Amino acid sequence: MQLNAETIAAHLNGTIEGDASTVVSAPARIEQGKTGTVCFLANPKYEKYLYTTQASIVLLNRDYNLQSPITPTIIRVDNAYEGIASVLALFESAKLAEKKGREMPSFFSWRAKKGKNCYIGVFAVVSKKARLGNNVKIYPHVYIGDNVKIGDNTIIYSGVKIYHDCVVGNNCIIHSNSVIGADGFGFAPQANGEYKKIPQTGNVVIDDNVEIGACTTIDRATMGSTVVGSGVKLDNLIQIAHNVEIGKNTVIAAQTGIAGSAKIGESCVFAGQAGIIGHLTVGNRVTIASKSGLSNNVADDKAMLGFPAMEAGKYKRSFAVYRNLPELSNEVYRMKKIVEQLTASKDTE
Amino acid sequence: MQLNAETIAAHLNGTIEGDASTVVSAPARIEQGKTGTVCFLANPKYEKYLYTTQASIVLLNRDYNLQSPITPTIIRVDNAYEGIASVLALFESAKLAEKKGREMPSFFSWRAKKGKNCYIGVFAVVSKKARLGNNVKIYPHVYIGDNVKIGDNTIIYSGVKIYHDCVVGNNCIIHSNSVIGADGFGFAPQANGEYKKIPQTGNVVIDDNVEIGACTTIDRATMGSTVVGSGVKLDNLIQIAHNVEIGKNTVIAAQTGIAGSAKIGESCVFAGQAGIIGHLTVGNRVTIASKSGLSNNVADDKAMLGFPAMEAGKYKRSFAVYRNLPELSNEVYRMKKIVEQLTASKDTE
Amino acid sequence: MQLNAETIAAHLNGTIEGDASTVVSAPARIEQGKTGTVCFLANPKYEKYLYTTQASIVLLNRDYNLQSPITPTIIRVDNAYEGIASVLALFESAKLAEKKGREMPSFFSWRAKKGKNCYIGVFAVVSKKARLGNNVKIYPHVYIGDNVKIGDNTIIYSGVKIYHDCVVGNNCIIHSNSVIGADGFGFAPQANGEYKKIPQTGNVVIDDNVEIGACTTIDRATMGSTVVGSGVKLDNLIQIAHNVEIGKNTVIAAQTGIAGSAKIGESCVFAGQAGIIGHLTVGNRVTIASKSGLSNNVADDKAMLGFPAMEAGKYKRSFAVYRNLPELSNEVYRMKKIVEQLTASKDTE
Repeated sequence: MQLNAETIAAHLNGTIEGDASTVVSAPARIEQGKTGTVCFLANPKYEKYLYTTQASIVLLNRDYNLQSPITPTIIRVDNAYEGIASVLALFESAKLAEKKGREMPSFFSWRAKKGKNCYIGVFAVVSKKARLGNNVKIYPHVYIGDNVKIGDNTIIYSGVKIYHDCVVGNNCIIHSNSVIGADGFGFAPQANGEYKKIPQTGNVVIDDNVEIGACTTIDRATMGSTVVGSGVKLDNLIQIAHNVEIGKNTVIAAQTGIAGSAKIGESCVFAGQAGIIGHLTVGNRVTIASKSGLSNNVADDKAMLGFPAMEAGKYKRSFAVYRNLPELSNEVYRMKKIVEQLTASKDTE
Repeated sequence: MQLNAETIAAHLNGTIEGDASTVVSAPARIEQGKTGTVCFLANPKYEKYLYTTQASIVLLNRDYNLQSPITPTIIRVDNAYEGIASVLALFESAKLAEKKGREMPSFFSWRAKKGKNCYIGVFAVVSKKARLGNNVKIYPHVYIGDNVKIGDNTIIYSGVKIYHDCVVGNNCIIHSNSVIGADGFGFAPQANGEYKKIPQTGNVVIDDNVEIGACTTIDRATMGSTVVGSGVKLDNLIQIAHNVEIGKNTVIAAQTGIAGSAKIGESCVFAGQAGIIGHLTVGNRVTIASKSGLSNNVADDKAMLGFPAMEAGKYKRSFAVYRNLPELSNEVYRMKKIVEQLTASKDTE
Repeated sequence: MQLNAETIAAHLNGTIEGDASTVVSAPARIEQGKTGTVCFLANPKYEKYLYTTQASIVLLNRDYNLQSPITPTIIRVDNAYEGIASVLALFESAKLAEKKGREMPSFFSWRAKKGKNCYIGVFAVVSKKARLGNNVKIYPHVYIGDNVKIGDNTIIYSGVKIYHDCVVGNNCIIHSNSVIGADGFGFAPQANGEYKKIPQTGNVVIDDNVEIGACTTIDRATMGSTVVGSGVKLDNLIQIAHNVEIGKNTVIAAQTGIAGSAKIGESCVFAGQAGIIGHLTVGNRVTIASKSGLSNNVADDKAMLGFPAMEAGKYKRSFAVYRNLPELSNEVYRMKKIVEQLTASKDTE
């Protein structure tokens, strides 16, 4: 799809310098801009590219002073960085708007319901008693189990599987091949060494404005609900175990795992490959560094690092010594000899 | 589906106190019980909720003494905790029993075979020469490759992919989007820096009573078989590399990885995000703590922790010192000065 | 499929000793060889099995001296290990060659194009403006988004999802349930604590001869491209974040994660469960040990270990001390007492 400078300027409340009819079909970085793209300048580091870019349109801050004339059509805006984000969103929404109606063959149970303006992709499955809100997009190969509820404007990308009875809120995005509501990992050890499955009869409840990456797994509760709070953002390949609860606006990077029944606060930020032991309670605004493993409860506002995780500052001080442990060790054993000599000479005095 | 108190009591060999016709449609935790649910009391910590719960039925131990009358219908059983597990299983089996027959369109090769009472979901694929036992459930979007064999009563959830020639036993459960039998990661380095693929012509053999979580990957052997023993339980997002063998009744938590050709014993327990180097041999009943990385063979009955993993007790003692390394280091360098003074004064005596 | 000794010998430029009409249908390891299989002897450790194997054909080096006659038909070759790899490839290519044509129902947009001799599996989706080269194999349940380009001879296994605008080169293999081109994890924090999605409008570009394992995720760039260089081999469950670039012939083992905008050099080898912080630059031929986490740029040819990663040799020396930290600590505090006594006795002199 194509946008012209006039449309973009109107969308951004911007002012055009140059040809208002210039047409673009994609955004680009200034150093890679080709004809038909729109780019921006925010970081002075990239200033030199402004005079060589092949892009057709460039967004500039209103107060930016050009050193010499440039080729692209200019759109002046209050904040070029925020401006390009709006332009990206404009392209995205145009692309998403193309997906609508029901493609065939797809399976939509006669006992399922959907609101207005939904997209049901080819080979998608919507099982009995499922309820979709308005403007929901179900991509091909999605599986929506019995009695699942999906809120308005939510997008479920190809290959996502949502088991029976789970609930997804409004304005959510779930990326391909994520699995919502598979059985939690619960087994009772038997006297003969075997394990007996503990049925997992709860569900998963995902609140509004949640985004979930690709190949992420969120298990259903044994009883009750595994809960993902509103505004939570989960990256790819994350494991959320049964009965976990995550507070609103918490952000979790890829490959992190949260074990069963852990309670996570609001506005936390967990970096990639972090881990949290089961049944812990983590406060609000807690940060966990990448690869770090939490093994104890954590109060509000703490920054944690390492495995087992310690407060970040303390861990760093320990690690600084660790880096030079051989020298420390050598020092100790060198001293030991001296002290032994001192003691010996003292004894012989 | 609905169960009444009489049915549940008969199933549990329990005694009813109250209305035997009370109907429930789901289990609940006692503190969250609503009308139409069945809950239980096992842990005294939750005793207070017994007098306020809205649940319609509650399971109590036969010897439990009520402080005052309660609203729900009571079913007295020998062990309320085991009782609720049986009730959960009752609801689950009712739900699973609903899935039967062949939904269309689905692909079932005329050269494939299936036993009695199988479920083949819409858009599922069962390729040529595949053989399914009795009561097998193949959910929508499952791919069963050529010549795959699946035992009786096994459930394969939506989106699972099983490559050609693999074998899955009886009474297994494989959760959504797991991949069984993709090529092992084997490449021969070439003189020009490129890598040449080593064909992976073996398969995966999964024994009886195995449960596999969502988005878990088990690679086929280069030659021979990658083997998952009977009763093994694998959580989500686990990597099992080519030619690995896992002994019976071993339990492995989410995001753990086992590298190629490692041999794992029976009745081991590996916590989440653990890792095992290739070609290792791990004994029986070995436990590995979360995030820990095994880099050497381990004998029976060891508990391992850390990276590289050490025996847990030893690792903990080292980590206890690590936590206070800066203090230790300061002490060393403070002493060093004193010792130098002592030595100097000695020299000048 | 079946091959006889004559066909195999011709393929390997080998010499037959025994019955040239002996037929085999699978390769096997020498210790597991059954009738109808072909095995090989390269490692002297396995020599004893040569005289007991049930295999029908065995590959031997030309210069190998038998101790006594053996049952299988022998094919003498220059290098038995390389020979068996060729035989494996022969079986594999025969199996792959069987997949051809378009199975129905499948979805192939009238605005998509494909070259000669492609395979389109049942329930696969090829969206509008997608372009497939010659000999491309698209297995069942694959989703190819709008405007995706796939090169010649590439194999996409069941359940792979490739989002719009992504590019995959020639001779690539992508295993089941991997996701190419899902949105990168980019959100702008808002004053009210919520996060606003930054649209991800770039794509993923995968060069020629790349193999990608199962359930691996490669996110699309915010703008521009996430790039996987030619000859790169990625194992299962790997996370490649937005705007990452990976140089040619780099090999990455399972469950490793690379955070956003990191630039990885050529011919690197990363072991399993490794992690790389965002925006780092990693040189050529760098190795990272399993479970290790890179938090700084790394120059060419370094071997890194630990978290945070240090040069491997240095880390090992520190870890050697760590293993015995309690002893070191005890030594320090024992010495402290002696030094205090020495100081005290000195003071009282």
